[in-house]
Amino acid sequence: MLIVMKPDAGASDIERVLQVIETLGFRGHQLPGESRTAIGVTGNSGSIDPAHFENLSGVADAIRVTKPYKLISKDIRPEKSVIKVGNGTIGGPELAIIAGPCAIESREQLFATAEVISRSGVRFFRGGAYKPRTSPYAFQGLGDDGVKMLAEVREQFNLNIVTEAMDEHGVDAVEKYGDCIQIGARNMQNFSLLKYVGKTRKPVLLKRGLSATLDELLLAAEYIMAEGNYDVILCERGIRTFATHARNTMDLSVIPAVHRLTHLPIISDPSHGTGHNYMVTPLARASVAVGADGLIIEVHPRPEEALCDGAQALTPAQYLDLVNQVQLIKSVITSEEVVFAA
Amino acid sequence: MLIVMKPDAGASDIERVLQVIETLGFRGHQLPGESRTAIGVTGNSGSIDPAHFENLSGVADAIRVTKPYKLISKDIRPEKSVIKVGNGTIGGPELAIIAGPCAIESREQLFATAEVISRSGVRFFRGGAYKPRTSPYAFQGLGDDGVKMLAEVREQFNLNIVTEAMDEHGVDAVEKYGDCIQIGARNMQNFSLLKYVGKTRKPVLLKRGLSATLDELLLAAEYIMAEGNYDVILCERGIRTFATHARNTMDLSVIPAVHRLTHLPIISDPSHGTGHNYMVTPLARASVAVGADGLIIEVHPRPEEALCDGAQALTPAQYLDLVNQVQLIKSVITSEEVVFAA
Amino acid sequence: MLIVMKPDAGASDIERVLQVIETLGFRGHQLPGESRTAIGVTGNSGSIDPAHFENLSGVADAIRVTKPYKLISKDIRPEKSVIKVGNGTIGGPELAIIAGPCAIESREQLFATAEVISRSGVRFFRGGAYKPRTSPYAFQGLGDDGVKMLAEVREQFNLNIVTEAMDEHGVDAVEKYGDCIQIGARNMQNFSLLKYVGKTRKPVLLKRGLSATLDELLLAAEYIMAEGNYDVILCERGIRTFATHARNTMDLSVIPAVHRLTHLPIISDPSHGTGHNYMVTPLARASVAVGADGLIIEVHPRPEEALCDGAQALTPAQYLDLVNQVQLIKSVITSEEVVFAA
Amino acid sequence: MLIVMKPDAGASDIERVLQVIETLGFRGHQLPGESRTAIGVTGNSGSIDPAHFENLSGVADAIRVTKPYKLISKDIRPEKSVIKVGNGTIGGPELAIIAGPCAIESREQLFATAEVISRSGVRFFRGGAYKPRTSPYAFQGLGDDGVKMLAEVREQFNLNIVTEAMDEHGVDAVEKYGDCIQIGARNMQNFSLLKYVGKTRKPVLLKRGLSATLDELLLAAEYIMAEGNYDVILCERGIRTFATHARNTMDLSVIPAVHRLTHLPIISDPSHGTGHNYMVTPLARASVAVGADGLIIEVHPRPEEALCDGAQALTPAQYLDLVNQVQLIKSVITSEEVVFAA
Repeated sequence: MLIVMKPDAGASDIERVLQVIETLGFRGHQLPGESRTAIGVTGNSGSIDPAHFENLSGVADAIRVTKPYKLISKDIRPEKSVIKVGNGTIGGPELAIIAGPCAIESREQLFATAEVISRSGVRFFRGGAYKPRTSPYAFQGLGDDGVKMLAEVREQFNLNIVTEAMDEHGVDAVEKYGDCIQIGARNMQNFSLLKYVGKTRKPVLLKRGLSATLDELLLAAEYIMAEGNYDVILCERGIRTFATHARNTMDLSVIPAVHRLTHLPIISDPSHGTGHNYMVTPLARASVAVGADGLIIEVHPRPEEALCDGAQALTPAQYLDLVNQVQLIKSVITSEEVVFAA
Repeated sequence: MLIVMKPDAGASDIERVLQVIETLGFRGHQLPGESRTAIGVTGNSGSIDPAHFENLSGVADAIRVTKPYKLISKDIRPEKSVIKVGNGTIGGPELAIIAGPCAIESREQLFATAEVISRSGVRFFRGGAYKPRTSPYAFQGLGDDGVKMLAEVREQFNLNIVTEAMDEHGVDAVEKYGDCIQIGARNMQNFSLLKYVGKTRKPVLLKRGLSATLDELLLAAEYIMAEGNYDVILCERGIRTFATHARNTMDLSVIPAVHRLTHLPIISDPSHGTGHNYMVTPLARASVAVGADGLIIEVHPRPEEALCDGAQALTPAQYLDLVNQVQLIKSVITSEEVVFAA
Repeated sequence: MLIVMKPDAGASDIERVLQVIETLGFRGHQLPGESRTAIGVTGNSGSIDPAHFENLSGVADAIRVTKPYKLISKDIRPEKSVIKVGNGTIGGPELAIIAGPCAIESREQLFATAEVISRSGVRFFRGGAYKPRTSPYAFQGLGDDGVKMLAEVREQFNLNIVTEAMDEHGVDAVEKYGDCIQIGARNMQNFSLLKYVGKTRKPVLLKRGLSATLDELLLAAEYIMAEGNYDVILCERGIRTFATHARNTMDLSVIPAVHRLTHLPIISDPSHGTGHNYMVTPLARASVAVGADGLIIEVHPRPEEALCDGAQALTPAQYLDLVNQVQLIKSVITSEEVVFAA
Repeated sequence: MLIVMKPDAGASDIERVLQVIETLGFRGHQLPGESRTAIGVTGNSGSIDPAHFENLSGVADAIRVTKPYKLISKDIRPEKSVIKVGNGTIGGPELAIIAGPCAIESREQLFATAEVISRSGVRFFRGGAYKPRTSPYAFQGLGDDGVKMLAEVREQFNLNIVTEAMDEHGVDAVEKYGDCIQIGARNMQNFSLLKYVGKTRKPVLLKRGLSATLDELLLAAEYIMAEGNYDVILCERGIRTFATHARNTMDLSVIPAVHRLTHLPIISDPSHGTGHNYMVTPLARASVAVGADGLIIEVHPRPEEALCDGAQALTPAQYLDLVNQVQLIKSVITSEEVVFAA
C-alpha cells in the first residue's frame, strides 16, 4: 500500500499514519517529494484495506499495491493448468469446443443436436437443464429430467457433458450425471454456491459476470480453489456496456490478460457474447485468434423454434462450417508458437 | 411485437412471417410503408421472444412491445404498496431510515452502534452477519452468532432488523431472528434464492445488481412475488460504470422511473452507492429529494478500525447530522405534495 | 510514481529501473517488501508517464501518484470561484438557474419562452442557435440569426445569455452577442476549440462529455485556463451507461467530488441528463440537494411541437413549479450550512 | 414509428394521437391488442422524433422503426466500397495495414520507423503531428513541421500517409501534404469538423468515439458523405467500459455489424484499443479473424523513450512478427470465402 499525503499535511498527520501502520503490524517508509510526502507500507503478506487510512487527516489517497489473489497466480504455478473433463482436456494444445443447445427442450431435439456435435468430432456437449431466465414466466428448463437425458447422451455419443447448476441441488445432480459444472454469469459472485462447488471433485466452468472486473473473476475462481477444487476453467461471455448492436460486448482482451496473470485456462462463448446468429462465427474465429483455449457454441436443429435464445443458435450446417474455420485459425496460431506470457 | 421487414423483402418473406405468427397462435397485421412493410402482432397476453422472427428471410428487426412483468405493475395495483417491516412501515408517508454497521464485528461494536441509531429516532437497524466479500480471504462475517446478536438488539432497543441472507440457510436464520431479508446486489439474479425467499412470509429488501437494467430489477421482484410473497422493497445502491471518483455510480433517475411503473417502494443506499464517507450525506439528501422512500446508512463507532467498508461508514456525529438534514428535505418534499406519477 | 517489481525480479532489473529514473532527472527510493520490491519516484513536479517503466524487465506495475492538473486545484486557490456572467454570478450563495428552449425555432417561440423565464425571477437564459445534432438531416439551428435574436432577448428582458458554440465562428458570435459560451458534451475534448475559448474574455460553461472521467473533465477546464481564461463553470449532464430508462445516467456524486478537488463552480442539467419530462423536476431537486451551484432547465411553450428534444422540455407551468421546489430545497441546504470540503 | 398506448387509454387519447400523426403529414394505423392498442405510423421517408408523442395523454411508449441514415446504407449501394488512399486501397481483398509512431518526435525517430514499415511491405504510414492530449501540459506534437516531414517520408519510401487533423487548419495541412485525413475518437461528434472534411477531396479515416453507439458512428460518417465526400473508412479503437485491465475495451462485434449495414470499410486499432504492448498482437490477430479490412499499429524504435503512448508501441521486431501473423490469419479468412452479409 502507498499512502499519498496532501501538500498541506503536517508532521502530526504523517505521525498518525505511521502509528496506524504500526498498529496493523506493518512498517511505514516516508518518501518526501517536491510538494508532498508519500508513505510506503511493507511487511504485509496480503492486501490492506485502504479504509484504514482514507479518512485520516492529511491523507489524499491510499493506493493498493499487492494483488489480493494467491492460488490462481502464476507466482504459485508458472506452467499452465490442463484440466481433465471426462475423457477430454481443456487448456492443452487442442482447441476445446463445447457445443449443444441453449436449453434441453425434448429428447428428440437433444439427441438430434448431439448427433450433429458428435459427427463434428468435438469432445464436449452442453445443454441447459436448469435455466436462469430473466423472467419467471419464461421456460425454466426440464430440470432433473434434463440432466438425466444428458447422461444418456454421454453414453450413446461418448461426449463429455458440461451443464449449468444454479443451486446446491443442481450441483449435486450435475456432479452425479455430468462431467463439468457450469456456474453462470449471474452466479459468478454467488459466494455460497462457489464454496459449495469448491467442495465437489468435478471441474468447474466459471463464466465471467456481466459487469465483473478481471480481479473479481479471478477472485471468484480463488473462492472455488480455496475450498480444494483446483480444476477451474474461466469463460468470457461478453460484458454489459452502452453498446446495443450486440446483446453483450465481448471483451477479448481479457484473454491475453488472463494468460499473463494465471495458470488457468480460459474459453470464449460467442453465442451468449453476441446474441446474434450472424456474429457467432466471426467472433468464434476472433476468440481462437486471440488465444482462447476453447469455445462454447449453441446449436439448434431449428433455431426459429427454440424455446430459449434462438436468435443466437447456429443451424447444424453453420456449426459445421464454424468448426472447420476455427480449426484452421487454431493451426495458424499453433504453427506460429505464439506466446502470451508476460 | 412489431416485425420490420427489409426494403427488399418479397411477398413470400411476408407470407412466411405471417405463418409463423399464426403458428404461435397470434394475429399478424400488415402495415405497408413508403419503403418497407412492418407487421404488427396482436393476440399475445405476454411478451413474445424476438428470436422466432429475427433470422427469417427478409426480416430487418423484431421489436418487443409488451412489457414482460405483471405483479409489480401499476396496471395490477394502482395505489402504492406500504410494506410492514416488524412494527414499522416502508413506502408510507414517513422516510424509512435503515442504519447500522456494514458488518457485525463484536457485541461491543454492535450495541454501541445500536445505541446511536436508537437515539436518532429511526426505526430500522442493519448489520451484516453473512458477508458477501469479493475475496475469500476477507472477513466473512460472524454468521449465525451475528444473526442472534441482532435479535438481542431488537429486544433491547425496539429496532426492526434488516439483514442480508446469501443462501437458504441464511434465509431461514433471518426469517427466524430478523424482520426483513435483504438480497444483495450480487444475488439479484440468483433465481433459486429469489424463489426461496418468495416462499417465506417476511418482507424482502431487493438490491439492484451492479449492472441490472430497470426491467431486470423489476423481473427479479416479480420472481419473488410470483411465489406468493408480495412484500418487496427495491433498493438503488449504485451501478457499475467507467467513472472512478466513486465506488459505484448512483442512478437516482431510477427512483422516479420505479414510481412511474410499479407500486413497490424503493429506497436508496448512498453508503455502498458512493463508497466514500464525504459523499454519503450529499447523496442521502439527493436521494430523499428525488423521491426515495428511505435510506440505508452505514455507521461505525470508529470507521478507521472497521473490518469491512470503513471508508464509507459515518461516525455517530456525522450520522446524526445526516438524519437531521434529510428530515428537513423530506418535509419540503411532503409540503409540496410532489407527484411522480406518469 | 510508484513502480512495483515482480516477485522474481532480479537485482539487475531493479538497477535498470533506477537508471531510467535517474535518466529522467528524478530520484528513486527502494522499498523492499515481504515478497517483492517497490520503488518510489520523487523529484518530479508534474506527473510521469508510466510507459517509461511498464515494459521494462521485472516490472509488474507502474502507478501514477501525482495528479496532472494545477490551475483548477484548491491547492492553488482554496476559496471557491464565483464567476460573473453578464450582470449575474454563478458559484455564489444564490442558486443559478439557466432556462430556455433547447433550440431557437422562431422569434415567437423564443420571446414567449423568455417572457416565462423572466417572470420566474431567474437571471440566465439559454437557447440553442448552433445545434449539434446526431443526424445531419435533423434541424441544425437558426445559426447567426438565432444568436442575434438572443441579444434582443437580453435587451428586452434583462436576462444573461448562455448559448453553445461549436466552432471558432460560433465562439466569435457568442462572444459578441452573448454572456457565456457553452461548450457542449461532444466537444469537451475538442482541444483546439478549448484553446480558442481560452483566449476569449467571456466565461465558459463546460459540459462533461458522455464518457468523461472526472480527471478528463478537470483537464478540459485546465486547457481553457492555461490560455488565460479562468472563468470556467462545469456542468454535469449525464453520462452514458448500460441503463436505458433515462437517456443518460446522471452522476450526481461528481458534484461533491468537484467541490472537494477544485474551486470551480458546477451546475447540473437534468433536462439532457434524463431526457424525460417526468424526471426533470425530481432530478433538479436532487441536484440542488447534492450541492449543485445551479441548473439548466429546458422550457418550451408547446413541448409536443418542439423541433429538438421535446420529450424533455417542461411546459411553462411545470417550469414555474420546479423553480419553486428547488428554491425550497436550496434554502434547507443553506440553512444547514452544509460543507462539502475534504 | 410505433406508438404503444397504455391499457387504460381512452378513445379520445387515441383520437388525439391520430390527429398529431395527420398534422405531421403521415398516416396512422390502429392495431387493437388484448390489453392495449398500438398505432403504427407510415408515410414518413425519414425517422420521426418520438418526442411528438411521448408526453401525450395515454401514450406508454413511442418506438422508432426507420433507421435515420441513408448514404452509408447497403440499401443505397449493395456492393462494398473500396477506398483509394494515395496509390493504395482500403476495403479491397488485401489487408490494409497502417503503421508508424503515435507521435512524430524527431526526424531521426520518424525516418527510422518509416524504414521499418517500408521494409515490412505495408503501404500506409501513420504518425501524429497534431496530438489530442488529455492534459494541456503533455507533448502536443510538432504541428506543421511534423506534417511536412510526413510528406518527405512519402517521397522517400513510397508510403501513403494517414494522419490526424484536429481543426480546419490541420485539415488543410493534411489535405496538402498527406493522403488520408484522420478524425480522432474525441472529434467523432465535432460536427463542424465533419462538415469541413466532407468538403475536401481526400479520404477520411473516422475513428469511433469512446462512447459512440453504432448508429452514432454511422451518422458521423453520414455527416461527411452528406457534404459530398464519399470516401470514408471507419475504425474501431476500443470503447470505454468499467473494465480496467486494458485502456479501452475493443468491441470487435461492431465489425460484422458494420459489414451487415453499410458498404463502408472498417479497420481496427488494437494499439489504442488495448493500450498495452503485450495485448496488441493477439488483438490484431482477432481483428483480422473477425473480418476487419485493415489495422492501425503503433511502432517505435525505442518504446520506453516515446513521448506519447509508449506502453502500447511495438518494437520493430514485434511489429514484423505481427505482420507475419496477421497475414497468415488473413489467408485463412480469404481461403474460406467467409461471408458476413445479412
